Amino acid sequence: MSKALVIGSVALDSVETPYGTVDSSLGGSASYGSVAASYFAPTSLVAVVGTDFPKKYVTWLRNRGINLEGLKVENGETFHWSGFYETTMSQAFTNTTALNVFEHFRPDLTPRQAKERFVFLANIDPELQLHVINQLTNPELVVLDTMNFWIEGSKQTLAKVIKKCGLLLMNEEESRQFCETRSLIKAGEELLKMGPRTVVIKKGEHGSLIFQKDGVFSVPAFPLRKMKDPTGAGDTFAGSLTGYVARLRKATPENIRRAVIVGTAMASFVVEDFSLKRTLRIKPDEFQSRVEALYAMTVMPKLNGKSLKPYAK
Amino acid sequence: MSKALVIGSVALDSVETPYGTVDSSLGGSASYGSVAASYFAPTSLVAVVGTDFPKKYVTWLRNRGINLEGLKVENGETFHWSGFYETTMSQAFTNTTALNVFEHFRPDLTPRQAKERFVFLANIDPELQLHVINQLTNPELVVLDTMNFWIEGSKQTLAKVIKKCGLLLMNEEESRQFCETRSLIKAGEELLKMGPRTVVIKKGEHGSLIFQKDGVFSVPAFPLRKMKDPTGAGDTFAGSLTGYVARLRKATPENIRRAVIVGTAMASFVVEDFSLKRTLRIKPDEFQSRVEALYAMTVMPKLNGKSLKPYAK
Repeated sequence: MSKALVIGSVALDSVETPYGTVDSSLGGSASYGSVAASYFAPTSLVAVVGTDFPKKYVTWLRNRGINLEGLKVENGETFHWSGFYETTMSQAFTNTTALNVFEHFRPDLTPRQAKERFVFLANIDPELQLHVINQLTNPELVVLDTMNFWIEGSKQTLAKVIKKCGLLLMNEEESRQFCETRSLIKAGEELLKMGPRTVVIKKGEHGSLIFQKDGVFSVPAFPLRKMKDPTGAGDTFAGSLTGYVARLRKATPENIRRAVIVGTAMASFVVEDFSLKRTLRIKPDEFQSRVEALYAMTVMPKLNGKSLKPYAK
Repeated sequence: MSKALVIGSVALDSVETPYGTVDSSLGGSASYGSVAASYFAPTSLVAVVGTDFPKKYVTWLRNRGINLEGLKVENGETFHWSGFYETTMSQAFTNTTALNVFEHFRPDLTPRQAKERFVFLANIDPELQLHVINQLTNPELVVLDTMNFWIEGSKQTLAKVIKKCGLLLMNEEESRQFCETRSLIKAGEELLKMGPRTVVIKKGEHGSLIFQKDGVFSVPAFPLRKMKDPTGAGDTFAGSLTGYVARLRKATPENIRRAVIVGTAMASFVVEDFSLKRTLRIKPDEFQSRVEALYAMTVMPKLNGKSLKPYAK
């Protein structure tokens, strides 16, 4: 089994949804990503927090076996995001973003971290993502996430990072925005031509589309009946995907598709409660039964060849 | 092979999309539905047109082998819809709706039509849909379509029709509106409890969800790269679905799922051109290759049991 490296933000989130609120709970892309990855492979984290970062949260991460050598503590306050979701919970609205110590985050890897082969590069400034990629000495799979902010403000740099990653993640709107097209199919194919061996377009409740040289693949979302807080779904998806490919050791197209199923199942847990509460208590049987449910959802009974011939008048 | 019966509107449509315009071209739910069904089973049509209805369009339908005994010609003008789609083509906007002879459409079936077992009841007043269902003597599958207009104005009657149909079709927004929930999963399950043995929620570019006693199934949309006019996609889906189940003779849950794949493939053609232009020239090989592409899109490589066990720290 190989290991996984997760680089991104560790934050304190204050979130309000129609189902409740939390104040300064553990959040950030690297928190969600590393906890998810830790279910499948030994995981290291590279991020920064302030001196106010609660010990309780360090314990949460440590209890998942995450290597915290790369979690720097700097003088100042931890990155704090405060926001809310309206009834549909399809979009996050920001009240305040206090970058604090995260503003000067510079992910310089140790020689050991630079040798990691399975890396989830969560949503941070594309300049920093490029800086990380340039330090990696033997990457087998770099999973790249981003957001509309960088598409609007740093498209050229982002394009450079996309060229160098192995798997690009975008949500529907980001892919349409980046490629200036309404068609997700066109967007996915265009992004694939930029360099990544896989592009995954995340469509929330509609699942995801996987673009690879061999074609387009569709994976449904797990049919959730309740959702309390969508925060962290994308990072959980990406983190578990990275961890699962690390576990399988080779980033073949088929292994990537397997890992998308694993990521889909894992992301269905995180949204069932606030922060990492639900993700921290996933039982192996629950996980396995969601994976099996995803397979069952896509069982398409075969058509026999004769019945495919159109009726001749 | 059994036969298919399609009941709905035959209309003249004037449509504008970003890709062009057509004036008084053949449209209406029963036109799209019956032409699509005719690829798979001998099909009859029940609808009404005015004396202005062009002979050319009668020939289009007749050339598909459609039994037009039920196409009444009444004094007055044919139902005429005029509308447009904006850039995203996700929603039809109406300029004018002239019901004309369709205003007094009353689908009284002949004894032979009443014996039909596979029926597509396209979007008309639920009172009329109920009137049709009550005439059917031995239905094996009644496929029901509707629209937001009836959900807003005739919900009680629509609920009665839903109870009596075998397969209910709704699009995303209709299902959310009818069930007053944001969750498509909750909506589908609630609609299923009302009586139909299958509920299909159509999600356009995101494919469809199939709800049956055995669970939820997901079918992707065919990955189209160009779309000229979305008019008729839903009716083509429903018509070919009905025709295909008729061809298979029994409305088993598996046959319904097979037919959803067929409907998905057929609907991908109609939107490639205006009116029925593209649908009327589908070649068997083209159709078969789109069905195969849909299967290929959902191939999910298996995970081996051991690799599903979460990594133990």
